[in-house]
Amino acid sequence: MTTVAIVYHSGFGHTQALAEAVARGAQAVSGTKVSLIPVAEAEAHEAELDAADAVIFGSPTYMGGVSAEFAKFKDWTSKRWMAGTWRNKLAAGFTSSASWNGDKHNTLYQLLTLALQHGMVWVGLGLPPGYNHSKGSIEDLNRLGASVGAMAQANGDQGVEGIAASDFRTMEALGRRVAEAAQRWQEVPLKQAA
Amino acid sequence: MTTVAIVYHSGFGHTQALAEAVARGAQAVSGTKVSLIPVAEAEAHEAELDAADAVIFGSPTYMGGVSAEFAKFKDWTSKRWMAGTWRNKLAAGFTSSASWNGDKHNTLYQLLTLALQHGMVWVGLGLPPGYNHSKGSIEDLNRLGASVGAMAQANGDQGVEGIAASDFRTMEALGRRVAEAAQRWQEVPLKQAA
Amino acid sequence: MTTVAIVYHSGFGHTQALAEAVARGAQAVSGTKVSLIPVAEAEAHEAELDAADAVIFGSPTYMGGVSAEFAKFKDWTSKRWMAGTWRNKLAAGFTSSASWNGDKHNTLYQLLTLALQHGMVWVGLGLPPGYNHSKGSIEDLNRLGASVGAMAQANGDQGVEGIAASDFRTMEALGRRVAEAAQRWQEVPLKQAA
Amino acid sequence: MTTVAIVYHSGFGHTQALAEAVARGAQAVSGTKVSLIPVAEAEAHEAELDAADAVIFGSPTYMGGVSAEFAKFKDWTSKRWMAGTWRNKLAAGFTSSASWNGDKHNTLYQLLTLALQHGMVWVGLGLPPGYNHSKGSIEDLNRLGASVGAMAQANGDQGVEGIAASDFRTMEALGRRVAEAAQRWQEVPLKQAA
Repeated sequence: MTTVAIVYHSGFGHTQALAEAVARGAQAVSGTKVSLIPVAEAEAHEAELDAADAVIFGSPTYMGGVSAEFAKFKDWTSKRWMAGTWRNKLAAGFTSSASWNGDKHNTLYQLLTLALQHGMVWVGLGLPPGYNHSKGSIEDLNRLGASVGAMAQANGDQGVEGIAASDFRTMEALGRRVAEAAQRWQEVPLKQAA
Repeated sequence: MTTVAIVYHSGFGHTQALAEAVARGAQAVSGTKVSLIPVAEAEAHEAELDAADAVIFGSPTYMGGVSAEFAKFKDWTSKRWMAGTWRNKLAAGFTSSASWNGDKHNTLYQLLTLALQHGMVWVGLGLPPGYNHSKGSIEDLNRLGASVGAMAQANGDQGVEGIAASDFRTMEALGRRVAEAAQRWQEVPLKQAA
Repeated sequence: MTTVAIVYHSGFGHTQALAEAVARGAQAVSGTKVSLIPVAEAEAHEAELDAADAVIFGSPTYMGGVSAEFAKFKDWTSKRWMAGTWRNKLAAGFTSSASWNGDKHNTLYQLLTLALQHGMVWVGLGLPPGYNHSKGSIEDLNRLGASVGAMAQANGDQGVEGIAASDFRTMEALGRRVAEAAQRWQEVPLKQAA
Repeated sequence: MTTVAIVYHSGFGHTQALAEAVARGAQAVSGTKVSLIPVAEAEAHEAELDAADAVIFGSPTYMGGVSAEFAKFKDWTSKRWMAGTWRNKLAAGFTSSASWNGDKHNTLYQLLTLALQHGMVWVGLGLPPGYNHSKGSIEDLNRLGASVGAMAQANGDQGVEGIAASDFRTMEALGRRVAEAAQRWQEVPLKQAA
């Protein structure tokens, strides 16, 4: 059994809906236990986070970076950093904003810098870009062409219903990829076999 | 008279067409002299670059960063850096790739880091994001929602004809903004008045 | 009279001491009014921020990014962003951490991305790197070799007394540079002369 | 047997000496085959790169980014990107410059963005920062406090003899870490056991 924890902040529900899609993707990999943890509850789920094989970070992009609520979680992890608790876990990330580009890349860089400070190993999105040729459509997987993590776009005047179906599928793909990577990365079975 | 130099690399013509749009925008500001300099000819235009009030850098995004040809120009500027020749000039940047997001942000970061190493002052795009609400369209100015510089997207299987009209208008807006900033930044007239 | 506002968060006093050095540098430019505003008081100083010719952002680097308190301020500025209130102001930034490198670059990128989202114009440090040749010393100006903004390093087990004198001088240089740029950027006198 | 390829560009010998240290570290992990490939010879070592379990990228930091020669290699990898050849390999990176900070972080971001475009999995440095407390010294491992990859600093007026011994040890640690991760990541033995 490998465990994947998804720690996220959602201001208006978009990132929560995306986090649930990431969870569905991870859950689809048999032998995976998934935890969905809002940043406000991270402290209560401390042991779960410490035991996870992989942690996926999610934050909306606010003013070109992670939200204040996510940043509060980030700073809270400094005790783990000092203890090296999360070292060698897998990590990944996702974000959302109203614009197609919208400096989301900068948010993903922040998520990965956090992970790499912890000594975690970063699993990117691993999907070719979609919607970038004349036969493409908004329904293509990875329609925004991200690589560092998964990105979604939702109009600023719409709720969760404004998120494209393809973005949910892209999030599921990220969850699945991380869950599969966690099984591959787990060395215990290999050592037992030896 | 203020002078704006646009130094760019274009692999397949897209970035050249965008550079020409930036030039049109700058040219529209009266009292502005514009030079359009392909990176391969930068050395021959050395004096022009040294005399420019503002330099706008343009590169396609290849594999998540500036093209090798642009990087060659970047490294060539190290003599100017040592001499401090470009210190306090204005700078700005633009890029293009096939994907909507496509790590273009990373390319703009590279252009601005180059500029800031030279002690230049960075003028971003300065436009609100477009196409990010339910009434928006692909024809909105700044449809990709960039801030650090101007971004264009063109399908990978299309030539210049694949660039959206709005992207050309966004490039023109960048050129105009930099030309106006260059006039405001010019201290000579102020000192003469004193 | 030009006005420079310094908005900063300080967790343990280091960034406050650095902010004061930035203020001293700006103050040394005659005709400059300087405000020193902790992020917790930003709301009370709203009008002052809106009227400033230049805003300098300061944050410690916590876990590879801006502190949660600074991020809260960042998110709070979104109303200004929607109204375009800070468009065309000058901006700059500084940060501090215990390590010599320590991902401080990532913090400065976040400060500048915030500024560029607001349509501000970014003034980097503009100093050549120090302490990078065999005759160099820790007392060199810009001893860390930063370009995007000013950086300081202070040992994790020391208070303000652990900050090198050269880092304070580097902060002063940033303040002075921004104050001078604000005077140059002010177009009012020029227009009056016309 | 796992294979680790180190692809690097060296302008004046520093990065080559560092690449050799990375190689020594990887070689010290038994069961590891290491290839040291200058970017100019990458094409001739195409098959070797395609077969590697992990690829470590190295470039000096020139003007705030990867060197033009490294960028040429980066662009050359686009065929592999289209074919997905390097997908799921491990990747890591290192860089060097004359300054202690010197925008090296930006170079590492470029190396990792390249890797993540290829769908590779990024292994950071995984070492706590050194030389960041009052008992620290320049001889500490990871004296610059990097996380995304390994960094070295060498005075601009010195050759390889100017690189601190601790930087070589930090490079060795990166090589060792990647080689160990490559063995853990290899799924073949696990599947055979099943």
